[in-house]
Amino acid sequence: MIMTLQDVWNEYKQDMEKMEQSIFENLGSDVPLIQQVGKYILNAGGKRFRPMLLLLSARLCGYQGNGSDYLLGSVVEFIHTASLLHDDVVDEAKLRRGQSSANSLWGSQASILVGDYLYSKALSHAVGLKNQRVMDTLAETTTTMSEGEVLQLMQIQNVDLTESDYYRLVESKTGVLIIASCKLGAIISNAPATREEALAEYGRKLGLAFQITDDTLDYTADQKQLGKALGKDLAEGKVTLPFINLISKVTPLERDKLKEILEADTITDDHLAYTFELMGTYGAVDEALETAQTFSREAARALEVFPDSHARQSLLALAEYVVQRER
Amino acid sequence: MIMTLQDVWNEYKQDMEKMEQSIFENLGSDVPLIQQVGKYILNAGGKRFRPMLLLLSARLCGYQGNGSDYLLGSVVEFIHTASLLHDDVVDEAKLRRGQSSANSLWGSQASILVGDYLYSKALSHAVGLKNQRVMDTLAETTTTMSEGEVLQLMQIQNVDLTESDYYRLVESKTGVLIIASCKLGAIISNAPATREEALAEYGRKLGLAFQITDDTLDYTADQKQLGKALGKDLAEGKVTLPFINLISKVTPLERDKLKEILEADTITDDHLAYTFELMGTYGAVDEALETAQTFSREAARALEVFPDSHARQSLLALAEYVVQRER
Repeated sequence: MIMTLQDVWNEYKQDMEKMEQSIFENLGSDVPLIQQVGKYILNAGGKRFRPMLLLLSARLCGYQGNGSDYLLGSVVEFIHTASLLHDDVVDEAKLRRGQSSANSLWGSQASILVGDYLYSKALSHAVGLKNQRVMDTLAETTTTMSEGEVLQLMQIQNVDLTESDYYRLVESKTGVLIIASCKLGAIISNAPATREEALAEYGRKLGLAFQITDDTLDYTADQKQLGKALGKDLAEGKVTLPFINLISKVTPLERDKLKEILEADTITDDHLAYTFELMGTYGAVDEALETAQTFSREAARALEVFPDSHARQSLLALAEYVVQRER
Repeated sequence: MIMTLQDVWNEYKQDMEKMEQSIFENLGSDVPLIQQVGKYILNAGGKRFRPMLLLLSARLCGYQGNGSDYLLGSVVEFIHTASLLHDDVVDEAKLRRGQSSANSLWGSQASILVGDYLYSKALSHAVGLKNQRVMDTLAETTTTMSEGEVLQLMQIQNVDLTESDYYRLVESKTGVLIIASCKLGAIISNAPATREEALAEYGRKLGLAFQITDDTLDYTADQKQLGKALGKDLAEGKVTLPFINLISKVTPLERDKLKEILEADTITDDHLAYTFELMGTYGAVDEALETAQTFSREAARALEVFPDSHARQSLLALAEYVVQRER
């Protein structure tokens, strides 16, 4: 029985090794700076979450083809990596997963341009498959992702962001690539529409569970575990579910103070301490975690149309994993 | 007889108006910041050079289809515009065609993300045509373009850049999208391979003539005409053909001084005056303009396989135009 992320890795070790090889082979440029930055960021502790989803979805749908799974695994990882490179420039991030960000090592110029390269290379590999539905899915995905990034930029410091605004943001910024990873596994397996839709629904709920949990870490993890500064979202004026939960419960005076903190140019230790204490008092983080748990269960439920298999057990284990990351 | 750029505009006025409409309709996002930045940059004095090449190439090959020309015209314009947005962030440019650059108005964050949106949207529209060769061409083009951008970044302040390095840079950074615009016109017209290749060759030479002429403006135009600061390439450490010509002729002492200027953190009026005077003494700019003329003639020659037509006359007029821009 496959129960934990470690079990999944053990079960699909060979596949994921091939995936890893495919990712680095497909980077394929002889421009030294692209090699250097590309390899650095692809090596920087990513969990290959999206390639794994693609692989498992393909296995779940009985994929019998010849390497499209590995190829598309690199495609979704490249798109993800490109978005991280651009995100870190936009956020002026110094750290990424506990290591120096690419922009802090090579400058924002290299990060922007190598990000563009990875997007183009991803597209290029995908085009090579000559599969219209694959291209439709990827084109829609990257367009929605970039719209989501702009939406997020516009919502900075918006203390009135609603829960449904937040879900829309999460789905467009993070969710669609997770959904696409699951759907593409079904598409290359020529799975029937019901199965493709079930995997898309799994991905939709998984993405929400994943991002909400991630957003709680900003208010709970210590810097070493998280690999980025605590309170970073707050400092950047990014409103996430714990903050939305909190705002809905506080007194008008507390609300004014929180608004002030959200809009401050620099965030102080006092700001952080004040916010964290309120989060505790009103149980805003715990409430967000419960919401994430609900989405995780809904993700699992979406897979009920599939008979039991190692792939299905693995996807269920991933749904558990995303809400149980170290805090 | 179509002789000048104005003649071309007069002849294809209706087509280019439809093209213009298609460009703004295809921008298509309901995110206000995308609309705002997208419309600003698309309105900022672009000459629709690439859409026009695509249209004329399609006409030259007897295109009879239903709007793929206008659609792909917007696709190449979006890709071009996205690259300008990212370029201006990378170069920290304050001006673009005499107006404030998007990054100076909305910040580099919006420019990066709206650029990503335009790339994705371009891809998305192209995918909708369900034409494998169109997708192959675009995927290869954007990959080469982004490699070219990184290459250029690596070659900053390289006083030893050779003429062939420079041509490689120009072709990958600027040339390939011009080549693609011409080729796509042939592809959607189902033109025979010889005609497609002839148009690609025309585009290749046209791109070189265009970029070399553009690069001479940095050393000859006044700021108002050029719409960007004079000596900007030099200030940014970008080595272009006039500089390469110059370096090949100067004395060792002059070379040392030029190297110092190229590597200087800030460029002074003395630096500029010194460089401009040497350019005059050694005829380095004139030599570059002659090279551009040669490429322009080679572009024209590539069209000899086509019988005379308004489209052919127009493409010949464009080849003349690119080397005669105001100085």
